[in-house]
Amino acid sequence: MKRKDMLGLRDSTAEEIGLILDTAARFRSVSERRIKKVPTLRGRTIVTAFFEDSTRTRLSFDVAAKRLSADTLGFSASSSSTKKGETLMDTARNLDAMKPDAIVIRHPCAGAPHMLAQAFPWSVLNAGDGINEHPSQALLDMLTMRDHLGSLAGRTVAIVGDVYHSRVARSNLYGLPKVGARVLLAGPGTMCRPQMARPGVELLHRVDDVLAEADVIMMLRIQRERLAPGMMSTSREYARFYGLDLERLERARPEVLVMHPGPINRGVEMSPDVADGDRSVILEQVTNGVAVRMALMYLLLGGEPLPPGGDDAAAS
Amino acid sequence: MKRKDMLGLRDSTAEEIGLILDTAARFRSVSERRIKKVPTLRGRTIVTAFFEDSTRTRLSFDVAAKRLSADTLGFSASSSSTKKGETLMDTARNLDAMKPDAIVIRHPCAGAPHMLAQAFPWSVLNAGDGINEHPSQALLDMLTMRDHLGSLAGRTVAIVGDVYHSRVARSNLYGLPKVGARVLLAGPGTMCRPQMARPGVELLHRVDDVLAEADVIMMLRIQRERLAPGMMSTSREYARFYGLDLERLERARPEVLVMHPGPINRGVEMSPDVADGDRSVILEQVTNGVAVRMALMYLLLGGEPLPPGGDDAAAS
Amino acid sequence: MKRKDMLGLRDSTAEEIGLILDTAARFRSVSERRIKKVPTLRGRTIVTAFFEDSTRTRLSFDVAAKRLSADTLGFSASSSSTKKGETLMDTARNLDAMKPDAIVIRHPCAGAPHMLAQAFPWSVLNAGDGINEHPSQALLDMLTMRDHLGSLAGRTVAIVGDVYHSRVARSNLYGLPKVGARVLLAGPGTMCRPQMARPGVELLHRVDDVLAEADVIMMLRIQRERLAPGMMSTSREYARFYGLDLERLERARPEVLVMHPGPINRGVEMSPDVADGDRSVILEQVTNGVAVRMALMYLLLGGEPLPPGGDDAAAS
Repeated sequence: MKRKDMLGLRDSTAEEIGLILDTAARFRSVSERRIKKVPTLRGRTIVTAFFEDSTRTRLSFDVAAKRLSADTLGFSASSSSTKKGETLMDTARNLDAMKPDAIVIRHPCAGAPHMLAQAFPWSVLNAGDGINEHPSQALLDMLTMRDHLGSLAGRTVAIVGDVYHSRVARSNLYGLPKVGARVLLAGPGTMCRPQMARPGVELLHRVDDVLAEADVIMMLRIQRERLAPGMMSTSREYARFYGLDLERLERARPEVLVMHPGPINRGVEMSPDVADGDRSVILEQVTNGVAVRMALMYLLLGGEPLPPGGDDAAAS
Repeated sequence: MKRKDMLGLRDSTAEEIGLILDTAARFRSVSERRIKKVPTLRGRTIVTAFFEDSTRTRLSFDVAAKRLSADTLGFSASSSSTKKGETLMDTARNLDAMKPDAIVIRHPCAGAPHMLAQAFPWSVLNAGDGINEHPSQALLDMLTMRDHLGSLAGRTVAIVGDVYHSRVARSNLYGLPKVGARVLLAGPGTMCRPQMARPGVELLHRVDDVLAEADVIMMLRIQRERLAPGMMSTSREYARFYGLDLERLERARPEVLVMHPGPINRGVEMSPDVADGDRSVILEQVTNGVAVRMALMYLLLGGEPLPPGGDDAAAS
Repeated sequence: MKRKDMLGLRDSTAEEIGLILDTAARFRSVSERRIKKVPTLRGRTIVTAFFEDSTRTRLSFDVAAKRLSADTLGFSASSSSTKKGETLMDTARNLDAMKPDAIVIRHPCAGAPHMLAQAFPWSVLNAGDGINEHPSQALLDMLTMRDHLGSLAGRTVAIVGDVYHSRVARSNLYGLPKVGARVLLAGPGTMCRPQMARPGVELLHRVDDVLAEADVIMMLRIQRERLAPGMMSTSREYARFYGLDLERLERARPEVLVMHPGPINRGVEMSPDVADGDRSVILEQVTNGVAVRMALMYLLLGGEPLPPGGDDAAAS
């Protein structure tokens, strides 16, 4: 891969996305072994810099780095110099002086990872910036879809809920049309806005309108912490109009895939029987997250495309 | 060992306890070497999931895992998705999807580790659940006693203080009778309740009544954070009635062992001269803690019983 | 090196300082390689115990330890037993029982590291104690100066700002005269006190008075959290009297070095154009920090002085 950073799918090509997914599929087997480790990134330093709380994403990147034998260093905003008023650029200059190979960053400001990527020689992996992108999550979504559907070309993906505040949704809105998928959006008017429509992306608002056509239904998390007052009525009302329960799911295609980026508000976006039901691939998404992050670290830090072949080739 | 989890001593057998203590004794030498590391668990992933604050227990498990060359990943409740309202089962499902080999869990709800152990294929090590058990701490207590007393059969162990709220005490109440020891309890009536008595466990209330007979005196920590109002009078009064000072210690056998799970409230449960005195084996307990946790990780993750012989065999 | 601890430069000799800087210069190349790792401290356990918040210092020690292949364990006051009222000595006794090789400690009480160093067999690295010392930071300052100036003998170093509350300044006040440098202090009377003067250290108060003679200007961070009310007027007034901007810098020697321990209050101690200007060596300081900390860990844990020669010798 030519690029040194993964900032978002907005400026990624279909070829790059394909390479990442192919590589991730090859790395998947490492996590299935008894000794879950390859020496690929031994002696490389990867910093996880989370300026917003996170468990699953931080852990997933951390697991990925360790399975590639990299040294990982973490810091979070709560214990950092940012509390002493340091700017992000000064924090980054200090990290730079410690000679990292890559930095995984989550930051409340959209564009923060892009600023660092331009300024510094190391790789930047965007783990979520403001309400902009969260590309590794969209890539693991695509890997999960590809596992079940084969090619994504011509497939229909419904994204339901708070599209406006979701960086995962935004990354999927950029990425899915590039690989030939059609995206249908549904959600309250405050969260699904007309300007989101573009070639390959249609706005429908009503969940029931998107269900019949979808190969994949991606339910988004209601992020109460990001909602201005008045943007949403009660959870109960939300569940009634936009939540996915078994009754609603019956109107979808029998082979539809149900996805969610987690953590789930059970009973709001999705009823428990759907979350844990046989159409749900939510936990496959998490497993694929480790593989996609291994692939990103491998490729961004200069790894050659792996030859086609069995998963085991990733061990070399 | 047949079992995949260590949830408590309630359902452990004397044979299992013996195997764990023998194995721990063999691993002890690893921490005495210049290179404190054996490759036993290289490439295995161990997650420490602490939903309650802890220093010593978390550190002890972390040291143990690293000395076995495992990769460790930690998360604590304060930075976790639980703040976003995720259930423990959903958090665990997500961890599961990252393919860990073992999870060390401390959780405010009794039974939380058991729930995970039933639901998932990886090993669960209970590092304290509600007011239920804390088995690795009781095992290190037993290893420390065994070092000094040889067999525990026929020995008398006095446990003094807040037995009701102590998960260490509860694990010892289950474990010690299994290896043939007799347990005497003393403490305020709110903390030492009649229903704790059972074969091998007697309730005496007054410290002085248990001192004369005890081979081991285990003083418990007063956990102010767990006490309902009115359960305890002042620290000073507690010290007077239940604390262990030199004067009181003189009424015990000269070779008695003084133990405490830490952290000590000096001057409450125990006077400093007793804590630091020549009968105290409190710091041996901590050292044995690392060895016991190495043994648990080794055995639960499929390690064969080590052949009898020098400690150095653990290096292979 | 004979000593087992690095507590401060107060009781270090010029020979020791020279050995540390020479060793650090040799280790610098490790961080420039693709595989940033030497096996020097494999299997050794290094604990970072920060009882005060820190990002850069903790990260720097952590990077240093990992590049030497040591196992690192961290704990911070916020999640530690100190919240349960445990004394530092009890915490340390517990750490001791886990058999660490070295402990890196930052503590709000001056003298805390010294107490541990006396009581325990492992190495103690002082990462800042109260308003006493922060020796690794002063050593990285000296390495940076030496890179540019060659020998420090006969050189003049101006230290400007809140000298009283700065442990970096205090370590430099002890160390620089030992290697033959002359120190000039300038700052408000509440922060630069007459009793700081000693052989090799002069007090001048006005920034402009020290500028003309200095080979190095070290601007200190205003630590608002350490200032009693009334010790400082507004930031704006401070900047006017004591801050370093381009206009003031023009009165200094053209080849003067500008240093700052970070994090910088931009616009207070220093204007951005000076911080980022061509006289600033602030980021070289950070890079040298990793090398100095690697050297300290290597030497204190029994490493032999490295033979003179290319940087690559450090790889062996």
